[in-house]
Amino acid sequence: MILHLSTWTEIEAHLARSRVIVIPIGSNEQHGPTGLLGTDWLCAEIIAHRAEVGSIDMLVGPTFNVGMAQHHLGFPGTISLRPSTMILALRDWISSLAAHGFETIYFLNGHGGNIPTIEAAFSEVFAEASFRGCRSGLDLILRNWWQLAGVDALARQQFPVGHGSHADPSEISITQAAYPQSIKSAPCHPPIAPSGAVRDAVDFRDIHPDGRMGSDPLQASPDFGERLIGVAAQALSNEIAALNAAQARPGANS
Amino acid sequence: MILHLSTWTEIEAHLARSRVIVIPIGSNEQHGPTGLLGTDWLCAEIIAHRAEVGSIDMLVGPTFNVGMAQHHLGFPGTISLRPSTMILALRDWISSLAAHGFETIYFLNGHGGNIPTIEAAFSEVFAEASFRGCRSGLDLILRNWWQLAGVDALARQQFPVGHGSHADPSEISITQAAYPQSIKSAPCHPPIAPSGAVRDAVDFRDIHPDGRMGSDPLQASPDFGERLIGVAAQALSNEIAALNAAQARPGANS
Amino acid sequence: MILHLSTWTEIEAHLARSRVIVIPIGSNEQHGPTGLLGTDWLCAEIIAHRAEVGSIDMLVGPTFNVGMAQHHLGFPGTISLRPSTMILALRDWISSLAAHGFETIYFLNGHGGNIPTIEAAFSEVFAEASFRGCRSGLDLILRNWWQLAGVDALARQQFPVGHGSHADPSEISITQAAYPQSIKSAPCHPPIAPSGAVRDAVDFRDIHPDGRMGSDPLQASPDFGERLIGVAAQALSNEIAALNAAQARPGANS
Amino acid sequence: MILHLSTWTEIEAHLARSRVIVIPIGSNEQHGPTGLLGTDWLCAEIIAHRAEVGSIDMLVGPTFNVGMAQHHLGFPGTISLRPSTMILALRDWISSLAAHGFETIYFLNGHGGNIPTIEAAFSEVFAEASFRGCRSGLDLILRNWWQLAGVDALARQQFPVGHGSHADPSEISITQAAYPQSIKSAPCHPPIAPSGAVRDAVDFRDIHPDGRMGSDPLQASPDFGERLIGVAAQALSNEIAALNAAQARPGANS
Amino acid sequence: MILHLSTWTEIEAHLARSRVIVIPIGSNEQHGPTGLLGTDWLCAEIIAHRAEVGSIDMLVGPTFNVGMAQHHLGFPGTISLRPSTMILALRDWISSLAAHGFETIYFLNGHGGNIPTIEAAFSEVFAEASFRGCRSGLDLILRNWWQLAGVDALARQQFPVGHGSHADPSEISITQAAYPQSIKSAPCHPPIAPSGAVRDAVDFRDIHPDGRMGSDPLQASPDFGERLIGVAAQALSNEIAALNAAQARPGANS
Amino acid sequence: MILHLSTWTEIEAHLARSRVIVIPIGSNEQHGPTGLLGTDWLCAEIIAHRAEVGSIDMLVGPTFNVGMAQHHLGFPGTISLRPSTMILALRDWISSLAAHGFETIYFLNGHGGNIPTIEAAFSEVFAEASFRGCRSGLDLILRNWWQLAGVDALARQQFPVGHGSHADPSEISITQAAYPQSIKSAPCHPPIAPSGAVRDAVDFRDIHPDGRMGSDPLQASPDFGERLIGVAAQALSNEIAALNAAQARPGANS
Repeated sequence: MILHLSTWTEIEAHLARSRVIVIPIGSNEQHGPTGLLGTDWLCAEIIAHRAEVGSIDMLVGPTFNVGMAQHHLGFPGTISLRPSTMILALRDWISSLAAHGFETIYFLNGHGGNIPTIEAAFSEVFAEASFRGCRSGLDLILRNWWQLAGVDALARQQFPVGHGSHADPSEISITQAAYPQSIKSAPCHPPIAPSGAVRDAVDFRDIHPDGRMGSDPLQASPDFGERLIGVAAQALSNEIAALNAAQARPGANS
Repeated sequence: MILHLSTWTEIEAHLARSRVIVIPIGSNEQHGPTGLLGTDWLCAEIIAHRAEVGSIDMLVGPTFNVGMAQHHLGFPGTISLRPSTMILALRDWISSLAAHGFETIYFLNGHGGNIPTIEAAFSEVFAEASFRGCRSGLDLILRNWWQLAGVDALARQQFPVGHGSHADPSEISITQAAYPQSIKSAPCHPPIAPSGAVRDAVDFRDIHPDGRMGSDPLQASPDFGERLIGVAAQALSNEIAALNAAQARPGANS
Repeated sequence: MILHLSTWTEIEAHLARSRVIVIPIGSNEQHGPTGLLGTDWLCAEIIAHRAEVGSIDMLVGPTFNVGMAQHHLGFPGTISLRPSTMILALRDWISSLAAHGFETIYFLNGHGGNIPTIEAAFSEVFAEASFRGCRSGLDLILRNWWQLAGVDALARQQFPVGHGSHADPSEISITQAAYPQSIKSAPCHPPIAPSGAVRDAVDFRDIHPDGRMGSDPLQASPDFGERLIGVAAQALSNEIAALNAAQARPGANS
Repeated sequence: MILHLSTWTEIEAHLARSRVIVIPIGSNEQHGPTGLLGTDWLCAEIIAHRAEVGSIDMLVGPTFNVGMAQHHLGFPGTISLRPSTMILALRDWISSLAAHGFETIYFLNGHGGNIPTIEAAFSEVFAEASFRGCRSGLDLILRNWWQLAGVDALARQQFPVGHGSHADPSEISITQAAYPQSIKSAPCHPPIAPSGAVRDAVDFRDIHPDGRMGSDPLQASPDFGERLIGVAAQALSNEIAALNAAQARPGANS
Repeated sequence: MILHLSTWTEIEAHLARSRVIVIPIGSNEQHGPTGLLGTDWLCAEIIAHRAEVGSIDMLVGPTFNVGMAQHHLGFPGTISLRPSTMILALRDWISSLAAHGFETIYFLNGHGGNIPTIEAAFSEVFAEASFRGCRSGLDLILRNWWQLAGVDALARQQFPVGHGSHADPSEISITQAAYPQSIKSAPCHPPIAPSGAVRDAVDFRDIHPDGRMGSDPLQASPDFGERLIGVAAQALSNEIAALNAAQARPGANS
Repeated sequence: MILHLSTWTEIEAHLARSRVIVIPIGSNEQHGPTGLLGTDWLCAEIIAHRAEVGSIDMLVGPTFNVGMAQHHLGFPGTISLRPSTMILALRDWISSLAAHGFETIYFLNGHGGNIPTIEAAFSEVFAEASFRGCRSGLDLILRNWWQLAGVDALARQQFPVGHGSHADPSEISITQAAYPQSIKSAPCHPPIAPSGAVRDAVDFRDIHPDGRMGSDPLQASPDFGERLIGVAAQALSNEIAALNAAQARPGANS
């Protein structure tokens, strides 16, 4: 079930069966000469929506599409929240969902740069309960799609060299599969981009002049993207089924 | 051009021609027994994406999909930002776009409840410049899709009674046209919902027990939605063309 | 009763009869060549204090005298809060009054530029209750004095041309009536000022070089001000009496 | 000159002669059985406005009328800002005035409980400059009216016992002189109120059941208030004249 | 007992006997040509730790070592919090301790510049309770070590001239006694430093070019420091014993 | 050189040679039945101070001793900052040091729970520069002491089973070596503690009833602590020497 394509009465009925929700989360940031600006949030959304098809009681919320991408601001089209803003926004999303009775909020993340801020946001939410000495009643999960079962092995097998860590051929393959009309081609020099530290945006562009980090994105293909989506979606579906089953056991979250 | 389906080099090239961007903005909130939770952000997104097709130099950014919907939190599935959070998030979106050279940021809004907070956010951004005595260089525009040329007249003609102000047949028609597989049916009693004040969420649900405000959404139809989308998209396209033309005139923003 | 000229025991007694309070709110900002910097907060205060005389159980609190006027900061004497600051300040005023048992807080506003921020502040207060799923118990009302019954008609009749929207002859007439020793005279060229967009303060002064927006304030007169005050004060008094009566009805706010 | 009864052009002209401004600041809080809720801000305003009459180049801004009074929230009518809110509000007032070229902002304070927060706000403003390594160009002065030359001696002579520190006969005398129609009478038991620590509002009311702190306010009289106002206003006038003279000296603030 | 050298079970046992804790608090800021950057927090820590030895049920927490020192930022090595940051940090420290059942939190302060911000932080904490109309259950104490019984008299006797108010021979003597290997020598011209106002950091360094304020720190000696530590530690020990005794009385904090 | 035992003139001289500074950072939180509440900040401080002895141009600042420990608040003695507070505090520390010309700020961290918040704080600082399109000039490094060269291998060799992840025998050994008078003994049942998720404080204590996470701290010994300190301090010294050398190369940070 896709939350934003449902009515509130359908969500009310869902909550009687499952108190788990998946929120795709990513970033809107440059992805090198051939990667889409939406790559990170699109990948999370694509996988979550694919997994939803055919799953039982898997609910997917709207995509949190702009994340923490300050280091990419030197490239046009990047949109970033400050970490402090993102913590507040996540707090409000989580508080809204918790108010309805959701107990497990599973963020399927598509952007490595979001990780510290998402984790800090979880602690911010938990701290509210901890300072008052009461339970939050919440299980907050951060899961990067590239760490879903089978994904990393498949990517390493396909791209033994030049995978890199940003604008990489895995994520670009996924968007090519889902948005075939938006497949871009452009030269990349050198073929494998340099790697380096991440500091502010001016510094980042000095070190990574075309935006790539250690990657050769020209290896991407929509066919491989389709395979990645399939593996990732299956793994996600399994994880949500397990969470639903755990919640249904007697004594869970009591 | 859709920003998140473009590369940074494409946006760089766009900026040489136009410094205008459209951001669809809405809310993820209950829309009565038959309206989708995503109605408000979907409507803005649908119209903007339709307008983009065939327009010259119209750039559409990612959708700001969760807005200020505190009064709907009594209905499952609603997700809301506090006004203070939304001001910070909008400040960061605007600052990101301004850093790339965008001068006109046009928010196509789908949720009446967002209006004060968006306007306050604009003032927050302008105040930063005003306290320092320097120019922001920005033109920030808030435009509700139902106020685009021709839209209101068409809606009033179609729905002389029972249009209402929330979960109304216009917005539901638009999502029915765009998401025909998500057309919902449910009884609505009374046919035209009561109207009333908007305060906190518990109070709101007391006054508006099924979430509608003054509306009879069962009048909605995908065909009418298609007509509304067409009129709204054309008007939006015209407005963006005019903004581009104004920017291109000698002396503009100098 | 004027709150700041009362003792706490008098307010305690008032609360047993009425849980309504009026807060005049405005802005301290330039009002063109002849308008007082305090015009916006003075107008709200003048009308509220006039209404209080002779009313039964009408309580007027201190005036919130500095509001959101960032666009006027290019003119000496303007003092502005950022929207984010004003939201916090209003939250604290409202929370203080709510702690004493006031249930209806009626802001009589004298500045159009305050409207979005005041409404965002109301939502901020309501959101605190909504996220917790409990009632705020509050009715927060924003009322612009120029929308009180009879005021607009009188102003349009008196000033068929050149009323404008800032530094207008209505508001200046009111301060002339109340502060006859502070009536200013200065030339205004052109007689009717230009209108235009509101962005940052430097931009605002470019477009509105003497601070007026579309107005011909030299039409103002203390006599007309006296008439406006009378009409507005009577309408305000009626509204507060109605709110008191509503509260006194069985079942109100229960 | 009273800023809110002046035009922006008059303030512009004033700035060519003097870059000093006085801001009365106080609190709106209970003042025992006979003291007005506005006592603290009224006293500062009364003295500043009296001093302004006859002074040369003394400019008085609007009154900051709601301050830090959390400990009085147990008594109806008290309105308080949190310290964090008040710091932001003062920052915005100061930034507004600094943007116009004011260099000396002199807060004439009427509430002891404001002192830490005002001083913290000054440091907050200075810190902005200090972290950037540049000058603020500002002299921020906090002056309590009871510390103006001659005031304390006069009060001690008049009230050798029972002056106390809150709802005291000095401040009540001042408001009696200025608002003779609002002189209140009520019994006070015991005649001299207990003193004690200041913590939260519930605790405060336990210790100070009628709101007084160590005072016997029934000693107040409008005649003595008039004398106090005269002494305080003269001292204030002298201080502002000295600040103006210092600024006019060659090399000042260069 | 030193909290950070104890286990949580030891603190749990302590709480059964005493709900008082001492937090040394200071600043890390320049202290003239011969004073250590840590002087202010070291002095508070040295005295608290000395007092702890031999006291019964005196618990000392970790030292809050970076405070409000914006005016010293013109001198290398100074680290400062903004007042707004320090208020939040103190709120979190206090909330943590309150969650464990501590009722009296006694800040032994070593930096005059911290005083307003600490007091504002106390009010911020109390305000949370006051706005909700409930008790905080907290007694928050700010005590400057130089105001402990006997300390000021001893210092004045030892340094009849040239004590000054920053980088003074008392505080430097204390660090010399505790850190004899870090005794510094450097010329000081003039022997007694100038005094003056405290504004921003650039201004401060103009007025106080070597960082001293009115002091002749070359009078400092480790022997005198030892005497000061002894007197201060004894007074502190007595104060904590009195607080413990008060808490143990029937009806205390009930 | 220890910053807080130095004068500002010594730091000024240091900056001419090196623009690197080490800040020990940790947390003040429960560490099981035998671990000290200060373990995390003490370990970082102990290693940094040991490394400083004998190093050339290694500067160690004051210890950031209270970090993000919300999940431990169920155990007495824990003190925690909210993530949002810690971000602001770190921003102020970093801004202070940057204002003096430090370019490399190396946080030697002793608490895993701090990692996301410290990284978010770095991004918050960098974002300020990135939104303005200018360089921060800063290299911000987060280094956990247990990841210094040689440390992990030594710990795994010593504790093949029961190392765990909190209140572990490595960190406790270090504090035993440095604070031999504070070595604690207490039974631990079961010998190896359970592991589990980290959510809020009530939940944490349910899962980890004596505070340990997967560890058998009774294996700790001061002798082993001494070995760990030696290895870690040497590795830290080497890293700082390398950073100094890199900075000294022509073109560095230009």
